[in-house]
Amino acid sequence: MEAQPLNIRAEADRAIVWEHDRLYLLDQRLLPAREEYLELREAAASATAITDMVVRGAPAIGITAAYAVVLAARARFAESAERWKERIEQDLRLLAASRPTAVNLFWAIERMRGRIATLGEGDPEAALLSEAMSIHREDAAANRAMGDLGAALIDGPTSVITHCNAGALATGGYGTALGVIRSAHVAGKLRQVYADETRPWLQGSRLTAWELSRDGLPVTLLADGAAAARMAQGGIGWIIVGSDRIAANGDVANKIGTYSLAVAARHHGVRVMVAAPTSTIDMQVASGEQIPIESRDPREVLFCGGRQVGAEGVDAWNPVFDVTPAGLVDAIVTERGAVLSPDREKLEKLMA
Amino acid sequence: MEAQPLNIRAEADRAIVWEHDRLYLLDQRLLPAREEYLELREAAASATAITDMVVRGAPAIGITAAYAVVLAARARFAESAERWKERIEQDLRLLAASRPTAVNLFWAIERMRGRIATLGEGDPEAALLSEAMSIHREDAAANRAMGDLGAALIDGPTSVITHCNAGALATGGYGTALGVIRSAHVAGKLRQVYADETRPWLQGSRLTAWELSRDGLPVTLLADGAAAARMAQGGIGWIIVGSDRIAANGDVANKIGTYSLAVAARHHGVRVMVAAPTSTIDMQVASGEQIPIESRDPREVLFCGGRQVGAEGVDAWNPVFDVTPAGLVDAIVTERGAVLSPDREKLEKLMA
Repeated sequence: MEAQPLNIRAEADRAIVWEHDRLYLLDQRLLPAREEYLELREAAASATAITDMVVRGAPAIGITAAYAVVLAARARFAESAERWKERIEQDLRLLAASRPTAVNLFWAIERMRGRIATLGEGDPEAALLSEAMSIHREDAAANRAMGDLGAALIDGPTSVITHCNAGALATGGYGTALGVIRSAHVAGKLRQVYADETRPWLQGSRLTAWELSRDGLPVTLLADGAAAARMAQGGIGWIIVGSDRIAANGDVANKIGTYSLAVAARHHGVRVMVAAPTSTIDMQVASGEQIPIESRDPREVLFCGGRQVGAEGVDAWNPVFDVTPAGLVDAIVTERGAVLSPDREKLEKLMA
Repeated sequence: MEAQPLNIRAEADRAIVWEHDRLYLLDQRLLPAREEYLELREAAASATAITDMVVRGAPAIGITAAYAVVLAARARFAESAERWKERIEQDLRLLAASRPTAVNLFWAIERMRGRIATLGEGDPEAALLSEAMSIHREDAAANRAMGDLGAALIDGPTSVITHCNAGALATGGYGTALGVIRSAHVAGKLRQVYADETRPWLQGSRLTAWELSRDGLPVTLLADGAAAARMAQGGIGWIIVGSDRIAANGDVANKIGTYSLAVAARHHGVRVMVAAPTSTIDMQVASGEQIPIESRDPREVLFCGGRQVGAEGVDAWNPVFDVTPAGLVDAIVTERGAVLSPDREKLEKLMA
């Protein structure tokens, strides 16, 4: 991957930028200390960027893959104007293999594949770019709708706890969970946002705290283990999180630590809201047990802030996601509407 | 504080060493990367070492304070053979102010104060050193007794989750929670020990993992938020932790994140064992609400591995301890015996 300075100020709403006929990704591994964009010119490099978590967050991964398909089409069409549709399948598979859990990735690739199928002869780039940009715009628009729907559920003023980064950085803009939080803030319903730092990758302290404080929202960081104690103190109305995949029965896969929050929330009478676009709902997966849960290198747990903190030679368990059963979820908020006490029947209705 | 190389290999069982008429503390801020002893020659420096968490762990803080009283007595007696008993009160108060939550600190200072009261004219150092060494030895012996009593409660083989470091490093040797784990391991009852890394100070990854792996116990590190997901997988029989203070009704103050574990444990039918010497039980405090909970610099949450990870200017909530209500505790194991489903009546009986 080449580093090409992009002449714009880094913004959470500009995690993914198409400019100069290229794809630029704000390098989320470096935030908040450094605000740098990486330039991607090829699909393979884009897939690597997804795997390496240069960009992360389920919707953002999908949008990135969509732009990567544009880069792939450019290259394959240049190779062979007759056979690019066959050859691009290799790129689509590579992109689909970049990370296993977020269904938005597969949804976006499938949508681009569908668009490819409609194209005749001639350079496909403009049509595919248009499709990718629609995916990008629609995601941000969906988040704004979702934000208002979710905020409407909140009796304010109250404080909330969030986990990981389900913000503008994780999406096409505005954010899912952070979109609800932004909308609630505008509506005067928000006292304080408590953000779990979210080990091992620290999306909370590095990304969520960065996004929210830049927008002037009242945010306080927590060590993940402190959330239950904060709930016990009172004043927390909702846990608000995003999701990487929602099963047909309403089970929710999200960043590791979400389930811990949900269990503690139930214990304290705090409600749990999951904000996610319908492209996160996977009706092909019956329940949470069938959601593939990515594991990553144990060294992510053994290291912190770039330095080794775990004793040498010790093993670590590093599942990236956990599953919160539908029974612990009080509301799933999508761009089409909110589902309270989700179950299969209600989700089928929503997705019909 | 001067750094004086002590010519011994660093061992978890040698966190506090009295040698060459001086106090040496294994610097637990530096583990596991560096194994260095600090030399303390004065009470004030020893109090600072406690505040700075060079040594930490409730029993270890008490033992350290006891040795610091020896250093204080040496200095005060040299100042004035007639008035040292008055003047040493200033040192005792300074030591008592070093950290507010662990009652073992006050218990040890009180015991040394009691010994001082019995002394006549003449150099008090030998008598006070003898008292401090007794406190030290008794703590290790209590832990061995506690270890066997706690292990006897475990139906093995099973896996356990622990939090923070309640090991040899936190005590006079062997450890409280880790003592139970060591005894269970010897008895063939232990499959795997899962250690919460324990943010923000990472006692789990830096200290517990170091101790246990050096002793050949099977330990796997977890991000704190992952513990609930691990419990959901099954095979976890007990949460085993130490404590910094136990109220008269059995409410338990321990490292932040303990309460989160206990809530998740109750949800999953996992039992919670608190291993602590009777010097941790404070019958003067009726319930957990009255236990003073130390707060520390928010920067401990904003930093990890020595590097800033939290966005600039963001606030963090950093209570060092939380309180687990007696109702979520299945067993308190002390050197005098185990109390199941603790309450005030049972603790009064134990402490009678």
